[in-house]
Amino acid sequence: MIKVVQHGVTAPIGFKANGLYCGIKKSKKKDLALIYSEKPCLAAGVFTTNKIQASCVVINKEYLKDARAQAIVANSGNANCMTGESGFENSRAMGLAVARALKFNKKDVLVASTGVIGKPLPIKKILNAIPELVHGASRQGGELAAASILTTDRMNKEIAVELYVGKRKIKIGAIAKGAGMIHPQMALHPPKHATMLCFVTTDAVIAHNALRDALDQAMQKTFNTITIDGDMSTNDMVVILANGMAQNKKIVEKTKEFRDFSKALEMIFLHIAKLMIRDAEGATKFVEISVKGAQTHEDATLVSRAVASSNLFKCALFGCDPNWGRIAAAVGYSGAHVDPWKMQIYLGKELVLRNGGRVKKQAAVLNRVFAQKNIKITVDLGLGKYAATAYTCDFSTNYVRINSAYRT
Amino acid sequence: MIKVVQHGVTAPIGFKANGLYCGIKKSKKKDLALIYSEKPCLAAGVFTTNKIQASCVVINKEYLKDARAQAIVANSGNANCMTGESGFENSRAMGLAVARALKFNKKDVLVASTGVIGKPLPIKKILNAIPELVHGASRQGGELAAASILTTDRMNKEIAVELYVGKRKIKIGAIAKGAGMIHPQMALHPPKHATMLCFVTTDAVIAHNALRDALDQAMQKTFNTITIDGDMSTNDMVVILANGMAQNKKIVEKTKEFRDFSKALEMIFLHIAKLMIRDAEGATKFVEISVKGAQTHEDATLVSRAVASSNLFKCALFGCDPNWGRIAAAVGYSGAHVDPWKMQIYLGKELVLRNGGRVKKQAAVLNRVFAQKNIKITVDLGLGKYAATAYTCDFSTNYVRINSAYRT
Repeated sequence: MIKVVQHGVTAPIGFKANGLYCGIKKSKKKDLALIYSEKPCLAAGVFTTNKIQASCVVINKEYLKDARAQAIVANSGNANCMTGESGFENSRAMGLAVARALKFNKKDVLVASTGVIGKPLPIKKILNAIPELVHGASRQGGELAAASILTTDRMNKEIAVELYVGKRKIKIGAIAKGAGMIHPQMALHPPKHATMLCFVTTDAVIAHNALRDALDQAMQKTFNTITIDGDMSTNDMVVILANGMAQNKKIVEKTKEFRDFSKALEMIFLHIAKLMIRDAEGATKFVEISVKGAQTHEDATLVSRAVASSNLFKCALFGCDPNWGRIAAAVGYSGAHVDPWKMQIYLGKELVLRNGGRVKKQAAVLNRVFAQKNIKITVDLGLGKYAATAYTCDFSTNYVRINSAYRT
Repeated sequence: MIKVVQHGVTAPIGFKANGLYCGIKKSKKKDLALIYSEKPCLAAGVFTTNKIQASCVVINKEYLKDARAQAIVANSGNANCMTGESGFENSRAMGLAVARALKFNKKDVLVASTGVIGKPLPIKKILNAIPELVHGASRQGGELAAASILTTDRMNKEIAVELYVGKRKIKIGAIAKGAGMIHPQMALHPPKHATMLCFVTTDAVIAHNALRDALDQAMQKTFNTITIDGDMSTNDMVVILANGMAQNKKIVEKTKEFRDFSKALEMIFLHIAKLMIRDAEGATKFVEISVKGAQTHEDATLVSRAVASSNLFKCALFGCDPNWGRIAAAVGYSGAHVDPWKMQIYLGKELVLRNGGRVKKQAAVLNRVFAQKNIKITVDLGLGKYAATAYTCDFSTNYVRINSAYRT
């Protein structure tokens, strides 16, 4: 039984958080966040696989080699990416200032940045604000932290759940941001750019391999299935801290407890991934692309992502135009094995393509499907047993407006 | 010496063409085109590599097995793709009607369609118009044919050139269409969807292998380097007919004459490819992405196409915002080998990225580059000697408007 509870990242025992405005954003919205644990944590992270990586990504991978961390400090409004050697110095300085204030080892403070690429980080403003940031951290501060990592997002993204491991209750909490430059393809070892950030806390006692594997599996099935604009970020990261304060029997792989923990993590990530799509820049629709009947899992994934990424299909969604030919074209160029005579396409529950040709429907019926806010597209390749799902949004004139004037 | 001359596809000796409105388009613009040669031609074609292919693509590949053709009949306003068995019957019927009227072998009449996918072709309207189409064909009809293959294009795309092979003058002419669903990746053997169509005529005497190879090489360096929206069509094709009426000494491979012919063909294709970008749906800018210093040619191509396809970069172009961080991010996710510390980025002639960080420039200087209608971006990977160029346009609110209401 997984139950949703309050307080996001500060729901698990022993975690505090805070968020404030330190002077980065012209809008004067909050731009600096802190999460930390009273006790040391096992930690794991997945990072963008973009070969251009922000200094925070490079540094966190280094810091996480010992599988330990105790805090995360994150700024929004500036990605601190492609900012040269001084960018690295600034990321390290930001982490170090938090480590000193909390008397933590410097490698136990992870850093994250999101915003414009190529602009020097205003590190003095950040350093000046860190005493107040640390001092004000509390068990109620999850929401402040959630607000402080947003960029073009219109709403906080947070959730927490509790579940039982044996007779002990454990909690998992998370906050996240991401509304544009969203096409994450993260991996444990290497990392990519949108920026999506997700910070996860748990009080569970769990073996490090189990923590890493649960993180990787859940991320593959959720964050790596969404796309907003096809642009992969230099700063994407999901980091999890586990402080063990729930005192449950240690969770190890291949047990019911591991499967329960993994399921809870996947539920959290799917919730956040869907929130990102709903909050996507300029989006007016939430769209699920369900692919089945593929010869391989890879083929199913290729097809789901090709359709989810098709600009033309996404413009048709915006225009409420059930132009399924654009779906067929994207399936065809996905790179997957496809037989046009065997494939079927459904808009909602309406079968529109079979035997290589359209199934005639009244225009009003299909228009009604595309007029909805939530749309499901099903592509059955008719060739095998593999399936995959991707989530996307429509492509609106507002998306273009938002992103043609992002820096101004 | 390659000289540009008048009359497009009807510039070479022995070719006639025509174009008219047969009733497919609601706009009542011309929608049916014919090109034919008085004498039989050697022929070659390259087609979309999309696995969903329109019936015309499948049929032409079959008809071209004998390396011969004498006419091309093409409609716009309907792609006749994903229209089942009857779609194939309609494509064959369209070709057959022309073959009968001209007393040609049925396999010598190639067919092409472009427009909406999944809608039955109004074949009766086409068949009714074919007598008039054939009867009205003339040496002056190139322009009418050019107009009749357009869809969202705002201007005709045609060109003709002449050059000498020994002492004989030969001509090459071409017409084309394409303004959206443009991300061609064509190949001789398999084929893809935007639709771009290009029909080429020549009166040169040329060996079939030489004709195929010249076509393939020129296409790779030109059409396959452009993108408008990243969506590959089911109907893309480039077809060339060579009737030999210039009576030059036969052009064979590995000769100066072959290189001259290839160069002329490449010049024609590059001209047309650039016209497509200039006429791209909603576009306000023409952008050249020049990549150098790559370790392999494939890497150079990956980088040039990733930048040319980045929605975020293209929105920044529309907004005249010199946000080069989005270029860096696209380079990083291109899949090519990249070292952020070695790569350099130029906006126009302005170096903006070096040694992993920005080169500080006055905002006004960079804004001026991005305010221009023609923009060149150079990415020097600093790793090797390979180079590639891609051409693209900006992504505008008008592109979204045009494509959200394409069918209505």
